Amino acid sequence: MAFLPLPSLPRSFAAIPRPQKCRSPRMTTASPSAPVKVAILGASGYTGAELLRILAQHPRAQITTLTAERSAGKTIGQVYPQFSYGLFASHLPVLEKTTDVQKWTERADVVFCCLPHATTQNIIASLPLDDGLRVVDLSADFRLRDVEQYHQWYGGEHQAQQLQKEAVYGITELFRDQVRTARLVANPGCYPTSAQLPLIPLLREKLILPQDIIIDAKSGTSGAGRSPKVGTLFCEVADGISAYGVARHRHTPEIEQGLSEAYGSPIRVSFTPHLMPMSRGILATIYVKLAPGCDAKTLRQCLQRAYQSEHFVHVLDEGLPPPQTRHVRGSNNCVIAVVDDAVPGRAILVSCIDNVVKGASGQAVQNMNVMMGLPESMGLENQPMFP
Amino acid sequence: MAFLPLPSLPRSFAAIPRPQKCRSPRMTTASPSAPVKVAILGASGYTGAELLRILAQHPRAQITTLTAERSAGKTIGQVYPQFSYGLFASHLPVLEKTTDVQKWTERADVVFCCLPHATTQNIIASLPLDDGLRVVDLSADFRLRDVEQYHQWYGGEHQAQQLQKEAVYGITELFRDQVRTARLVANPGCYPTSAQLPLIPLLREKLILPQDIIIDAKSGTSGAGRSPKVGTLFCEVADGISAYGVARHRHTPEIEQGLSEAYGSPIRVSFTPHLMPMSRGILATIYVKLAPGCDAKTLRQCLQRAYQSEHFVHVLDEGLPPPQTRHVRGSNNCVIAVVDDAVPGRAILVSCIDNVVKGASGQAVQNMNVMMGLPESMGLENQPMFP
Amino acid sequence: MAFLPLPSLPRSFAAIPRPQKCRSPRMTTASPSAPVKVAILGASGYTGAELLRILAQHPRAQITTLTAERSAGKTIGQVYPQFSYGLFASHLPVLEKTTDVQKWTERADVVFCCLPHATTQNIIASLPLDDGLRVVDLSADFRLRDVEQYHQWYGGEHQAQQLQKEAVYGITELFRDQVRTARLVANPGCYPTSAQLPLIPLLREKLILPQDIIIDAKSGTSGAGRSPKVGTLFCEVADGISAYGVARHRHTPEIEQGLSEAYGSPIRVSFTPHLMPMSRGILATIYVKLAPGCDAKTLRQCLQRAYQSEHFVHVLDEGLPPPQTRHVRGSNNCVIAVVDDAVPGRAILVSCIDNVVKGASGQAVQNMNVMMGLPESMGLENQPMFP
Amino acid sequence: MAFLPLPSLPRSFAAIPRPQKCRSPRMTTASPSAPVKVAILGASGYTGAELLRILAQHPRAQITTLTAERSAGKTIGQVYPQFSYGLFASHLPVLEKTTDVQKWTERADVVFCCLPHATTQNIIASLPLDDGLRVVDLSADFRLRDVEQYHQWYGGEHQAQQLQKEAVYGITELFRDQVRTARLVANPGCYPTSAQLPLIPLLREKLILPQDIIIDAKSGTSGAGRSPKVGTLFCEVADGISAYGVARHRHTPEIEQGLSEAYGSPIRVSFTPHLMPMSRGILATIYVKLAPGCDAKTLRQCLQRAYQSEHFVHVLDEGLPPPQTRHVRGSNNCVIAVVDDAVPGRAILVSCIDNVVKGASGQAVQNMNVMMGLPESMGLENQPMFP
Repeated sequence: MAFLPLPSLPRSFAAIPRPQKCRSPRMTTASPSAPVKVAILGASGYTGAELLRILAQHPRAQITTLTAERSAGKTIGQVYPQFSYGLFASHLPVLEKTTDVQKWTERADVVFCCLPHATTQNIIASLPLDDGLRVVDLSADFRLRDVEQYHQWYGGEHQAQQLQKEAVYGITELFRDQVRTARLVANPGCYPTSAQLPLIPLLREKLILPQDIIIDAKSGTSGAGRSPKVGTLFCEVADGISAYGVARHRHTPEIEQGLSEAYGSPIRVSFTPHLMPMSRGILATIYVKLAPGCDAKTLRQCLQRAYQSEHFVHVLDEGLPPPQTRHVRGSNNCVIAVVDDAVPGRAILVSCIDNVVKGASGQAVQNMNVMMGLPESMGLENQPMFP
Repeated sequence: MAFLPLPSLPRSFAAIPRPQKCRSPRMTTASPSAPVKVAILGASGYTGAELLRILAQHPRAQITTLTAERSAGKTIGQVYPQFSYGLFASHLPVLEKTTDVQKWTERADVVFCCLPHATTQNIIASLPLDDGLRVVDLSADFRLRDVEQYHQWYGGEHQAQQLQKEAVYGITELFRDQVRTARLVANPGCYPTSAQLPLIPLLREKLILPQDIIIDAKSGTSGAGRSPKVGTLFCEVADGISAYGVARHRHTPEIEQGLSEAYGSPIRVSFTPHLMPMSRGILATIYVKLAPGCDAKTLRQCLQRAYQSEHFVHVLDEGLPPPQTRHVRGSNNCVIAVVDDAVPGRAILVSCIDNVVKGASGQAVQNMNVMMGLPESMGLENQPMFP
Repeated sequence: MAFLPLPSLPRSFAAIPRPQKCRSPRMTTASPSAPVKVAILGASGYTGAELLRILAQHPRAQITTLTAERSAGKTIGQVYPQFSYGLFASHLPVLEKTTDVQKWTERADVVFCCLPHATTQNIIASLPLDDGLRVVDLSADFRLRDVEQYHQWYGGEHQAQQLQKEAVYGITELFRDQVRTARLVANPGCYPTSAQLPLIPLLREKLILPQDIIIDAKSGTSGAGRSPKVGTLFCEVADGISAYGVARHRHTPEIEQGLSEAYGSPIRVSFTPHLMPMSRGILATIYVKLAPGCDAKTLRQCLQRAYQSEHFVHVLDEGLPPPQTRHVRGSNNCVIAVVDDAVPGRAILVSCIDNVVKGASGQAVQNMNVMMGLPESMGLENQPMFP
Repeated sequence: MAFLPLPSLPRSFAAIPRPQKCRSPRMTTASPSAPVKVAILGASGYTGAELLRILAQHPRAQITTLTAERSAGKTIGQVYPQFSYGLFASHLPVLEKTTDVQKWTERADVVFCCLPHATTQNIIASLPLDDGLRVVDLSADFRLRDVEQYHQWYGGEHQAQQLQKEAVYGITELFRDQVRTARLVANPGCYPTSAQLPLIPLLREKLILPQDIIIDAKSGTSGAGRSPKVGTLFCEVADGISAYGVARHRHTPEIEQGLSEAYGSPIRVSFTPHLMPMSRGILATIYVKLAPGCDAKTLRQCLQRAYQSEHFVHVLDEGLPPPQTRHVRGSNNCVIAVVDDAVPGRAILVSCIDNVVKGASGQAVQNMNVMMGLPESMGLENQPMFP
């Protein structure tokens, strides 16, 4: 809309980010208006498609590489017909195999890696990060810093342990400074994003107790990916709901890692994900115990302070109706409400994101923007789509 | 199916129930094979329609009265076209006003009252209960025994306080003996049914702690009724989820009443309902703290013992996938799973019902069966519908 | 419901059916109250599951065999958890391989064959039909009487051409007499059932022209089966609609065969199926040209005459709202409306069925009932489920 | 995306449009970079909300007025929470009554009128069109040029018959030149857009016969608006489909008007709309008879020629899978496929739009862009959202 000073204000970064380890000549030649060349590995999944949708509106991104194993040789329009039409389609490269790394890295400044976990770590280990290439990894491979924990939850030994330690965990609002200079950003899981955005500021300030945190999360089915399985067929998801991975979902250690770090000592959480008949969205209902002297208002004020200058995280004022996933659909927003529980000493947090945007591809682009010194909301300005 | 001794075994009731206060000559004339004459007040809502669907298969029920205020004079087929066809339709009475009580009570043995709360209490107070008429009330008017609490949560003074005290709370499995002789059964709310069936046996045996019980419930939209409101329009419900009534839903005191009674001292719970895009079903995810020495297995065994001879309540064995609302859709079943939480000392219960059946009309018919000395599962034998 | 003379009136069959070719001693021993022993081949698909749901309520059926290739050795409750509970579950046989035909045919009076087309014909050819075994085949293998046409639309040569000629096409209302004595009934496709029920009586009486019949059909996703494919994933079906198989869907020749036969000369139709986000249901919107002197009323009267004594086919009176798939969901009903088009000389028919019931398993049981001399609606009496 | 010459190429308009009747000083002062001041009347409905979503991304639009009767005095964020957050929200005016026309017209260059039909004509008649105000009306009031026809289909006499004659029917691609200089554009109905885009070029070139055109259309529920009615409740729309307004839907004369004009003589069509469980989208399946010598290829080529330089209308090449509404969701695209029917001499067209975008608010903005001399795709560049 016009007459706004700018739809998305460039945040005042002191300077164009200069990754510490980057000695790449490519970086130094990057001028403020040059396009950012982007490779998307694993473009045939839902997060790959969503990156395309977002980057189509990004004035600085130029997609130079799209990879997909089974669909190599096809156009992306053959995989996702919505990308068959118009100018955007005509500028997209044909899908190729991920394997010939050297070839495509030569035309990339940033890599979005949307590959399955385990295979991801080998690919990323082979990338020329020392030459200035920046990577945002959307898999789970670099989210857990603890090598043992990775082994325990994902099986197999991690093949790139050095990088695992180096990787920056990319909830942008919470770790912006580290993201700025990172070579490798581990883009957070969808559930962990929905849970940590409301909880971490509260734990940092010790306004809630570390015990008995319950995270009951409801997710859209796109989170289960595009590989055909009985459990995600229309007839098996429509008109119903089910809990899954009860007490053993892999996002649990990721959440606990973030909360523990914020609080300064180990935290265990009860986390239950649910699969429900919506395509996009996560709603997390979070039950917490208040630190002495705190109530919902204390918590709300803490969160409003923490996110007051953020584009994408919004903390509702008291008395407003709780957020709905529909109200963030297609946007990079996270909306949070805080309510006093009827039981004294307790509060309830409700947090909503679009799992494919703020929970995956949107946050990945947000991280890219920060890494490349671009305005953080570039390409992510669109309003939610409702109805 | 043939060759089963009987698909639903008549439970061995010692004798035909004889309500203590009943001096009605009508009751004494009731022969074992005579039809049970049924009046449904408020038949144009979803619970009324569901009663019709169920009673259509009930070999002993005969519907003699259907009332509806705005639709009086119409056939039920004009309100619900699915009931326009066939023999069943041709035997249904035309909708009439509820007001002329005397007229229709003369042809009723049992009344199902599906009216809005507040108006319900006046109607029921005017019924000739002393003459042996039995009432199953599906509204909230007689669920809370405490007059003050009713006033606090529903506003206005209760107009039938004597009956409020007399009414039997009808989770059939838990209060069968009282239901048998009751003149007035307060049919439980849908959420309270889904929460109390798993929790009450555990609290009776003190296997879980009374503190920090969290009930996170997800409901189908039929629970919101058929009156048109923006919030239940297709576009406002589809492809999303929202919490509502956070920390102040009226089913909270109903749940707390049942749990407190079971435990022997007051219990407060955190209860959050969610509205989601399914027509039928409630899934309640319940987080509890274990009493010392207990684990999920202890809880599971307790529940399996409690419900081992029940038709409708099923407690899953260890290791099975958690229940889905789809798997109880259209049936009177409640399926419960118990899982050890990853956090020591905690467990997670998942409970599924069809909110319109076990959460409303199915349990109402189950209560009628018990009240009239019929096999408890009569008319409720159909399998769930999936897909 | 009580006081109805009987919820499902046994149709007055002159005698217990006696298939002409049947010389089986087994048949002669069948007493009126003996159970009908049923084998379901391919029980792990949606039509298999639906047969179970229906037969669970069938007072004369006894399921003696369930087969499934990949799931052999499992209980049906492991494949469909909704069948895990209660008495019904405990009486179901464990899934076994289809291959050992001799073993399970010994304990079967009727076989429901829910196998993929092509493999079906070989299995059925191997069955001891001469010994009185009756078969209802839910695949497409025996629907087309013309061997050439089968070859053209399904590829490969038919392996049981003699049986293909003998098989009776089982739209029960239209071919009841042939079904009664058939050894092998080809249970019709879901789309063909929804199209032929309204069209065949009109063509038999030549009330509509044979040219330019348009059948625009919208189907629930269960019609696509339970095998996982990208195209039937929740995210690919929800909140949208698509046409598929335009001008080349395999149900076209099946429809044309029935219409041509009814009219007495070849008829071609335009048939377009659509996949939409519902689990069950087909709505066919059919555009026809009126024969001279006819209008919607003529057509409606013809259909009402044709179906006036039927349990399951209902033709709406003038002025009623058009039928909805929701109003037949879970039932064996077909509801038909006839409307004058605004364009002179044209009419529009709307026909609704549940694709899994009247479009598959319900009609299969209806055919079994006719074949075995049972009341035609036995096990099929339940009302539609709405909401 | 960068490196495209421009994501949306400004079409080469010979000059900034200059409406013939415009003598307004305001127009002459409009500089190429000045914002276009926009008023949205009836902003609380779905089309109003969608205008906001689109205009939020429009670099030249500035929303100066939002009206709503019942919600006057509220912020739009109170009506649509998705607009509560961020910079965009903070720049939106508070909702006011429509009645004080003079006040808000002073700050408007363009008016989008999303009011109910009938009331619309009075409001628009009172607007200062002579002063250069441009109006895009999203109601039905100015779509039918024939006064008698309006009366017949909508009842009541038209209150602004002069304007009714003047109004330009705004399917942008087909009537761009008239739109450019129009004071009042009648924004087309959703169904008529989906039907006329594929049919008009074919009729103009007489490649299809004018008889027996069948339009079978399936619509998302947002088309029914946000006013609560039983028929659009979630439980009444989910998991099913119904035809409505069969042979008497008000979009019929609108479609016939466009087709007749294109063909040069009166055309009647069979048009059946269906309501189905999706929030957004229309898929129209259109059955036509070919003119002698034509086949699907002829038709396809005609349409590809007609739309080859269009941003938003895409005609699929032979052999591609038919379009799905999901593939245009949230975009202003219309995708069309042409297939030879199996019946000789016939073809089938499938056309998909998002009913709220190309079927309403998107096309309205497209028209505004044309009227104001802006690049036609400005604000409408976003890719479809799938999943």
